Parts: sequence; C-alpha cells; structure tokens
Amino acid sequence: MIIVVKKDCDKKQLDNLIGWVKKQGLGVDVSVGESSIVLGLIGDTPRVDIDLVRSMDIVESVKRIQEPYKSANRKFHPEDTIIDVGGHKFGGNHFQFIAGPCSVESEEQVVGIAKAVKAAGATLLRGGAYKPRTSPYSFQGMGERGLELLKIARQETGLPIVTEIMSERHIDQFRDIDVVQIGARDMQNFQLLKEVGKMDKPILLKRGLANTIEEWLMSAEYIMSEGNKKIILCERGIRTFEPMTRNTLDLSAIPLLKELTHLPVIVDPSHASGISRLVEPMSLAAAGAGAGGLMIEVHNDPAHALCDGPQALRPEQFEQVVNKVKNILPLVDKVYD
Amino acid sequence: MIIVVKKDCDKKQLDNLIGWVKKQGLGVDVSVGESSIVLGLIGDTPRVDIDLVRSMDIVESVKRIQEPYKSANRKFHPEDTIIDVGGHKFGGNHFQFIAGPCSVESEEQVVGIAKAVKAAGATLLRGGAYKPRTSPYSFQGMGERGLELLKIARQETGLPIVTEIMSERHIDQFRDIDVVQIGARDMQNFQLLKEVGKMDKPILLKRGLANTIEEWLMSAEYIMSEGNKKIILCERGIRTFEPMTRNTLDLSAIPLLKELTHLPVIVDPSHASGISRLVEPMSLAAAGAGAGGLMIEVHNDPAHALCDGPQALRPEQFEQVVNKVKNILPLVDKVYD
Amino acid sequence: MIIVVKKDCDKKQLDNLIGWVKKQGLGVDVSVGESSIVLGLIGDTPRVDIDLVRSMDIVESVKRIQEPYKSANRKFHPEDTIIDVGGHKFGGNHFQFIAGPCSVESEEQVVGIAKAVKAAGATLLRGGAYKPRTSPYSFQGMGERGLELLKIARQETGLPIVTEIMSERHIDQFRDIDVVQIGARDMQNFQLLKEVGKMDKPILLKRGLANTIEEWLMSAEYIMSEGNKKIILCERGIRTFEPMTRNTLDLSAIPLLKELTHLPVIVDPSHASGISRLVEPMSLAAAGAGAGGLMIEVHNDPAHALCDGPQALRPEQFEQVVNKVKNILPLVDKVYD
Amino acid sequence: MIIVVKKDCDKKQLDNLIGWVKKQGLGVDVSVGESSIVLGLIGDTPRVDIDLVRSMDIVESVKRIQEPYKSANRKFHPEDTIIDVGGHKFGGNHFQFIAGPCSVESEEQVVGIAKAVKAAGATLLRGGAYKPRTSPYSFQGMGERGLELLKIARQETGLPIVTEIMSERHIDQFRDIDVVQIGARDMQNFQLLKEVGKMDKPILLKRGLANTIEEWLMSAEYIMSEGNKKIILCERGIRTFEPMTRNTLDLSAIPLLKELTHLPVIVDPSHASGISRLVEPMSLAAAGAGAGGLMIEVHNDPAHALCDGPQALRPEQFEQVVNKVKNILPLVDKVYD
Repeated sequence: MIIVVKKDCDKKQLDNLIGWVKKQGLGVDVSVGESSIVLGLIGDTPRVDIDLVRSMDIVESVKRIQEPYKSANRKFHPEDTIIDVGGHKFGGNHFQFIAGPCSVESEEQVVGIAKAVKAAGATLLRGGAYKPRTSPYSFQGMGERGLELLKIARQETGLPIVTEIMSERHIDQFRDIDVVQIGARDMQNFQLLKEVGKMDKPILLKRGLANTIEEWLMSAEYIMSEGNKKIILCERGIRTFEPMTRNTLDLSAIPLLKELTHLPVIVDPSHASGISRLVEPMSLAAAGAGAGGLMIEVHNDPAHALCDGPQALRPEQFEQVVNKVKNILPLVDKVYD
Repeated sequence: MIIVVKKDCDKKQLDNLIGWVKKQGLGVDVSVGESSIVLGLIGDTPRVDIDLVRSMDIVESVKRIQEPYKSANRKFHPEDTIIDVGGHKFGGNHFQFIAGPCSVESEEQVVGIAKAVKAAGATLLRGGAYKPRTSPYSFQGMGERGLELLKIARQETGLPIVTEIMSERHIDQFRDIDVVQIGARDMQNFQLLKEVGKMDKPILLKRGLANTIEEWLMSAEYIMSEGNKKIILCERGIRTFEPMTRNTLDLSAIPLLKELTHLPVIVDPSHASGISRLVEPMSLAAAGAGAGGLMIEVHNDPAHALCDGPQALRPEQFEQVVNKVKNILPLVDKVYD
Repeated sequence: MIIVVKKDCDKKQLDNLIGWVKKQGLGVDVSVGESSIVLGLIGDTPRVDIDLVRSMDIVESVKRIQEPYKSANRKFHPEDTIIDVGGHKFGGNHFQFIAGPCSVESEEQVVGIAKAVKAAGATLLRGGAYKPRTSPYSFQGMGERGLELLKIARQETGLPIVTEIMSERHIDQFRDIDVVQIGARDMQNFQLLKEVGKMDKPILLKRGLANTIEEWLMSAEYIMSEGNKKIILCERGIRTFEPMTRNTLDLSAIPLLKELTHLPVIVDPSHASGISRLVEPMSLAAAGAGAGGLMIEVHNDPAHALCDGPQALRPEQFEQVVNKVKNILPLVDKVYD
Repeated sequence: MIIVVKKDCDKKQLDNLIGWVKKQGLGVDVSVGESSIVLGLIGDTPRVDIDLVRSMDIVESVKRIQEPYKSANRKFHPEDTIIDVGGHKFGGNHFQFIAGPCSVESEEQVVGIAKAVKAAGATLLRGGAYKPRTSPYSFQGMGERGLELLKIARQETGLPIVTEIMSERHIDQFRDIDVVQIGARDMQNFQLLKEVGKMDKPILLKRGLANTIEEWLMSAEYIMSEGNKKIILCERGIRTFEPMTRNTLDLSAIPLLKELTHLPVIVDPSHASGISRLVEPMSLAAAGAGAGGLMIEVHNDPAHALCDGPQALRPEQFEQVVNKVKNILPLVDKVYD
C-alpha cells in the first residue's frame, strides 16, 4: 500500500500516521519527494482499511498494491479450484451447461424441462423456487414447494440442481440442494454470504448489477472467510447507459478473473440481455472468452411461452446452442464431460 | 400499457395475446397502423408483468403509461405523507438534520457525539451498530451492544435514533429503534423489505447504488404492501464512471420524487462523495433542490479522526452546515422545527 | 410514434397538437382511454422531432415505434451491404483482419509491421497518422507525413490502409486512403460526419464511448444522408463503472446490430480493454458473437515496446489470434478470404 | 508518479525502464518492498505518457501523484481566474445569468427573448446558430445568419452573446462573438480545441456526456496550451443508467473543480435533465453548491412552445429563478453584478 502525504503537512500528524501504521504490525518505507512524501507499507496490508487512511487531512491519496482479497487470490493459490457437483466438474478446463426454467411452476413443467435439457446436453438443472422480483405484485416463486419439485426432477433425470436462496431463514431448506445460488441483488447481502459460507455446498455467486470485479471477489472472500471454499462465479451483465439490452454482458471479466482468482467462472447469457435471440451469439462469445460454463433459461412449451421470460429458449434452440458451443470448446482448451 | 405488435404477425398468436390480456380483467383497445398494430390496455395494468409481455415473438415493444407503483404513487395519494418521529416531522415542508458517527464505538463516544450534534442543531441521532463492509476483514460494527449504546445516547439527549438493519433475524432487536434504516446494498433485499414492512416503525430507505428511481419506489412499494406506510426515502449517490467521487449524488431525484410520490425525501451528502470537504456545498445544494432533510456523519474527536470515515465532519463543521442550510430553508418553503 | 396525452388536458392544446402533426403530412389515430388519450402517428415519423413533442405541457410521454434511422435501417434494406476494399469484402459472411501499429513512427517501422501482419494473416493495414490524445502534451501523430508512410507500406505489401481523420480540413489528404476512420470521440462530430459523407470512400465509424446503439446508427445516418453508403461500424467498448478495463466491450451490440442494420460490424478488442493479454480471448469472443472482422494493434519490436500502447500484440501473438479465430469462423458461418 | 514493478521482474528490463525515465529528465527514487519494487518519479511528470508506462510487461501499476494538467491547475495558479465579458465577470465571487433560446429562429424571436431575459435579470444572451443534433433530419440551426441575428439582439439590449461553434472552418464567423461555446459532444474534438485556443475570446467549455473531471480539465489544457487562458467550465450532466432524466447533473463537480482549478465554473440545468420543471430546483441547488453562474434556456412565446425544447422556461418562470437564486447568493459568498 502506497500512501501519498502532502509535503507541507503537519509533521506531528505524519508521525501519528506512521505510528498508527506500525501499531498494525506493518513496516513503513518513507520517501521524501519534491512535492510529496510517499509511505510504502509492507506486510499484511489487505487488512488495512483504505477509507480510514484516506480520511486523514494530511493524506493526498492512497493506492493498494496488493489486492484486498486473499483466499480468492490466485497469487496465494495458483492452482485452479475444481468443484465437483455430482460428477460434473467446474473449474480448470471443464465446461458445464446449466439449463432450466426461470421459475418452477409444477411437477409436470419442471420434470418435462429437466428431461428435455438433459437430452439436449445440459449437465445441471436450474430453476427458481424463490424469485427476486422488482415488483411486490409479480409472482414471487413457489418457495419450499418449488424446491421439492426440483428434487423430484433431479430424481427423474439425475441432474444436480441449482437454485437461488434469498433468506438466511431458508438455509435449512437448501441443505439438499446441489448448488446454492446467490443472486445479483444479494451479492452484497453480507449476512446471507456469511450464512452460506458456513454451508458445505458449492455456491454460485452472481455478479451484482453495479459491482466491480474487485467487489465481487470481496464477496467471494466473505463466503470463504467462513470456511466454504467452493465458489463458482457467474457473470450476468452490468448496468450501463445502453437501453437496448437489460444489462451489458461484461465478457472481459472472464479472462481478467482467470488471472486474478483460482475460482471457476461461468456466464449467464439469458439474464444479461433479456432477449432470447441474443442467447446463442452471446453463448458462443462467452465460450470464446474462456468461460467455464453457461447457465441458460429454457422453457418447455411454446404454446405457453407467455409464462416464460423473454430470455428463455425452447429446448431445440438450447440444443443448437449446446452443439455450437461444443465445437468451440476444443479451440479454447475446454472439455465437456 | 401500450403493446406494439408486428404488423405481419401470426393472427392466432395475436388472438392468444388479446385473450390473455382480457383474462387478467383488462380491456383492450386495438389500433391497426401501417407498419404495426397497437394494443392499448385499460384497467389495473401495474399488475401486468411487462417482461412477460415482451417475451412474445409477435411483440415489438411494450410501454407502460401508468407507473408500476401504486401505494407510493402521488397520483393516488396527492397529499404529502407526514411522518412524526418523537415530535420531529418528515415530509411536507418539514426539514430535519440527522447526524452522528459512522459506527458506534463506545458509550463515551456516542453520547459525546450525540450531545455535540444536538447542540449544533441535529434533531435525530444516527450511528451504525451493524455495518455493511465490502471486506470481511473490516470492522463489522458492535452489533446488539451498539444498539444499546444508541439507546443510552437517546436517553441522555432526547434525540430519536436512526440505525441500519442488515438481517431479518435482527427484527426484534430493532423494536425500540425510532427509525430503521435499509442501506443502499439492501434496497432490493426483498425478504428484508417484507419484514420491515410488518413493523410499525418509520423506515429510512436508501437508494441503491445502481438503482433507478422507479426501482427505488418499487422497493418502497414492497414495504408498503405489507402494511407499513411510513417510509422516508434517502438519496445517497449512484454509481457512475466518475472516479473522483465515490458516487455521484443525483439531486435531480429530489424534485422528480416530489412529483412521483407523496413520501418524504432526504439526502445523505456524506456517503455520496466520501469526501468531507464536499459535505457543506452538497448540503446547501440538497436544500436548494428541495430535500426534506439531511443525514450527515459527524465524528467527535479530531485526535482520533483516523477512526472515522473520510466523509465525517467535526461538530463545529456540522454546526456551520446547519446554520447555512437554515438560511436557505425559507427560500425553498421549508421549516426547521 | 405513440403520443400519450394527459386525459385532463386542455382540449384546445390537444387540437393544436393534432393540427401540428397533420401539418407535417402525418395521419393521426386517436384512442381515448380511462386515464389518458393515445395518439398513434402514421407516416414518415422518423422525421418528427421527438424532443419537440415531449416539450408540450399536455404530453405525458412519447414513444417511437419506428426507428429514427432510415438509410441504415435493415427494415428498408433487408440485404446485407457488402463493401469491397481492394478485393477484401466487409459485410455478409465475410471476415477481415485489420492490423497495424497504434501510431506511424517511421517508414521502417510501418513497413516492417505491415509485412509482419500480412504474413500473419492480416488483410488490411491500420496505423495512426493523426492521433486523438487526452493530453496536449502527448504525441499527436506524424500527420500528413504519416499518411505518406502508410501509402509506402501499402505499396510494399498490397494491403489497403485504414487510418483516422480528425479534421474537416484534412479531407483532401485522405483522398487516397482506402478506409477513412472516424474515431470514438468524433462519432458525434457532425460536421466531420457530413464531410466524409461526401467522400466516395468506405468509412469505418467507431462507436462513441458513451453512445447508445441508436445514436451510433444516427451517426451512420448522417454520413449516408450525404450520399456515402459505405459504412463499416466498429464496436470498441463503452464507458462503465468498472475500473479494471479502460472500457467495457459491448459484444451484445453485434447480434443486435445484425438485426437493426444492413451495415457490416467489426470489433476492436485492443482499445476496449487497453490490456494486451485480453486481446486474444476477446477476439475469440467477438468472432463467436458474429463480428465481421477484427481491428487489432500490433507492434513490431519488443525492445521498443515502450513506444506502443499496452494493448498492442507482437506479430507472433497476432498470428496466434488469427489462427484461433479462423477456426471459429466456420462455426458462425463466416469466411475469411 | 509512482510505478509499481513486479518483484520477480527481469532486472535488465527494470534497468531499461529506469534509464528511459531518466532520459526524460526525471529523477527516480527506488524502494524495494517484499512483493514489489516501487519507483517514485520526481520532476515534470505530467509530461510522462502514463499509458506508455503501463504497457511494459514488468509494470504492475502506475499512479499519478501530480495531476496531468498544469495551466489549469490551481496548485500552480492559486488565484482565481476572473474573465470579464462586456463588464460582466466570471470567476471569483461573481455570478452571472446566461439566458436565451435553444435556437435562433428569427430577428423578432431572438430580440424579443433577449429583451425579456434582460428585464428578468440575465446578464448575457445565449442562442444556438449552429445546432448539434443527433439526427440529420432535425433542424440544424440557421448558421451564419443566426450569428447575425444574435448580434442584432446584442445591439438592441447590450447583452454580450454566447453561442456554440461546431467547425474549425467557422472560426472567422465567431470573431465578433463575445463567448464561444464548445458543446459537450465536442469536448474532445481536439482540433477544434486547438483552433479556439488561438482565439483571443472567452471559451465556454461544456463537460462531455461521458467525460471525467480530469479529462475535462485536460481539454481546458488543450485550449490553454495554445495561449488562450480565458476558459469558463460548464457542467451540464453526465450519462448514467437513470432513464428519467436525460443526463444526471453532477453538482459535486462544482466544489471539486474549485479545489482543482482556478477557472470559473457555471452550470446548465436546462440540458442536464431535459425537463423544464427541474430547472428551478436544480438552479437553486447549483447556486448552493457554489456555481459561478447559470445558463438557462428561455423561450418567448408559449403559443409556439412546440418549437422550443422541453427544457425551456417562459420569461416569467426564468425571472422567478433569478429572484430565488439571488437570495441564495449572499449565503454562498457570491455577488450578482
């Protein structure tokens, strides 16, 4: 950490600052320049509260050299984290297809879609039981009953299930879920992060709509600091000024995260744009960028398309995406197994 | 709600759409134009799921005419909502100063600051007991003990207290808090919104970092739909590309909200910029824009400034802000009482 | 175009509005609903100034149904525009690699790089003679002499040349350039757009850092309205809150533009992120998303790497990108010729 | 400038970097830390191309300590720049009201509005002769004839005139204009900046829609580096995700700029929101934030309101704004003269 202090600062305040730094067990290297004094902090600087340092009157600017995340940092864990979900691996050169309906609506629906996506190539089933909706007047999901129906679909197909948790109070309901999803709006719901950090379950952590990559890794750090190291990151688009797509898929995050962290990273091309016609090209793009998997919304019955989000594919469309993506995988050193 | 349908659409699909709309108890007005067909929906359209409609292949675009929020909508409640907190009123032409430390640290600290801000003109005391922090390694607040210390400060000064809740599990701890704050990161923590919606307490609802004004009102709607109508909105800056300030304070939201809703709106100039030198000018700006109050961070002891955020003022600086703002209030038809 | 008028409006003002619309040669379809009156405008609505309509007191909202661009609109020109540059085609299923240095620095440098990128698979040469720089103290390019050196490189290699124009006054200098580039900062330099619209040259129009897809197409429309229909669109990243990349590459724009316009679309992965390590994955992603070409910065001499931007590849790295992208092209129905 | 070099870097490359820095006439201070090597550059670092340094393989990060702008920097020019326009002063504690129509349409119109805004308190007249419009089909302004009409209005009222230049070719037409405006879309039209930098005229430089405060000051630097030091900065809103306002007025920029630069700063509340009802509250807010003036659109004839933008006020509304703002000025140590 580099602290730039104003040259004309009160020397007593400077001594206070240096003393405070040393009290935290850090070394300090002081360089006096022409227009400022530069302090180089040495040691466990990720634990220093950067906002606190910035608050001092004498401080002109502060810059981290080390990243503020440790458990998620590839520097300290150079090996890829591999997470096994019912025999399907995330991380390293593995690639997975997670597919299923936006919301679980009935046993017939979810089992039907589960069979269809499995036949099309999906390796995990997704489906919403608890649904975060902007409006209190929108369908909020089937809740616990939805979780039961997902388990039936798992039994019928063998597909492990991925579904979103929205409340600390529901932890017990999710004990038998294969992958627990933290949605974009909950990426900084720190209490929930701590709770799922105590679970022995893979956590699929979506990026918040307006969160930086660093904040995303800090949220992974929250989970990991409670003991749970099995985190799958999922890019799903960020909020920008462009109105044609609901969000802007930030695929540059994929190769960046590959450098910064050892955790697996997948992409959700359905929610990002909110337009089903974009799912295929953005799936191919995500594979090209090096993603380790895709999470795609699929609905079963074109006649009831109205009950699915505008981003959902029909099973045959999903199958076409799977087949095209499979052809790209060898070119980016990924395997589908 | 206006639905624009492609002119060359499958007529059967169009009939299905019209049938579906009517089944929801809505009227439909069909206009056939040269290049499209326009459906005008009449009735309780806020309850229609706009994403669902957009999903139909035949739909070119959908536009709401009515706002999707009802309880918070000024159209249906033209009178300002006035919320009384221990004799201090929010809403209408009332103006309040909420001040206090970022975090509660000790009885001496919080009581000391409480007395100082009261003397300087504050009408409510703020202070964090549970703190949302980006890093799990940063101080997370004193928790329940912090709430107790706030109550002591209230007893000593008579100032009602405002503090942030971060978990559904803590609802009982907040029964004796005067104003329960929902922080920016929890603005779309829908479970928490529902829980505080069941409380009989004023809720201070901060705007999310990347949330539109409409989404903000929908979150107010979540609380109101559970029965709690006492909501104070608090603008605190949105995320933009500008790196010099932590967030960009969106003061245009103030006059816009005055038109859209009957709920009181205040401004937090401390968190928005994250720079203490900006608190005074942005407080005057907020007052000029028509805000109904300010929430300002104040720390007590310049010698320990390091323990306060960079956005905190000293009590004498806060007093100067209060005095300058008081002079602006009559020019914008606000009263400080 | 749909104009929503307040139900309780002054009828005389409504008549004025309807009269004004008809005077513009448009038809009007009036629907009276419960809470508003909806006017459907029929005819050449792209020529209506939407801001003008919004300004009326009685107007609640206005929504375009037809896009405001016509010449660039695929609806009116369903066939792909194919642009031939020295035998290399843009548009349709064609794919091109444009490569070269950020700035032209010397004959040796630009001819050397030109030969290297041709050997690696490039089909056009890029290079900056006039350079837009944020700081007046940064190198501003060699200017006219740089254009001469590019022409020498063209003569030596046969590669057509692409270079940026920054001033109306330089039009004559660009008469012998194969593709004239409009940079991101000039996307709404309307005078310059009009001038290049009078040229009989392909124009490579980069997206502005903060411009929507619709504004981008309107800028194409400016050029086309002067007679020049040969426009190649180039996505190069938009400004967002994410600080790790200089800009966020918006690859969703590729499939969207394919629907909206008949013009060819390529991607510049070098400027978007500003990080050379991201060029390969983002090139593969762009190809997967359906781009019709790539524009990539390549520098010649690793010993002088300091004089190239951080986003530039070495020739052998560029060759690897070409080879990997070539493998993806057949999967997305593109040909490299 | 601080350059952080990877600890395990090739020592020869490090020596090359240090040699290159010294060749630029700069001193280097080397600190070897545990995980990185920190170079502190001393001397005229604003002239160092930061992107160039970042490009080196061995460089982990680079951070400026000194701002990259010099002429505009308050550090080197602590005194406020005061710009006199026909006896009306910008800068320091002076406050000016610039008002007038969006576009000049006729002699009668512009003279009529000029008289009305003068009576209401305006000290300068604004009006567009050349209009930047997103669409080539929108009215582009009267051009040179519009400039003539503005001069007539000046003669009739004595108000100095402010109008936008859009082309280097028009410089001669603007020799007799009092304040030459550079619009938001041209903030980084570097050729135009250089040309107006050679004029002996006050330049009103609007902030670009997606430009940072630092980039804005760099554009001022472009003008100043050509000799023209008379620059008035004008905040007019930045592009964000919020759709309710056309742009988000960034009033925090006002107090920040006051610290960073000695140049005067004013605010345009009309274009920022694009909503006339917001002009009054945002004008009061701008005054509260410390702006040194306001530029407000006023139209003359309510019967022809359709020909003015939705952001224009009627003269009597403008007069009310002037009167309310005048009451705020003494509270922020500004004078209206």
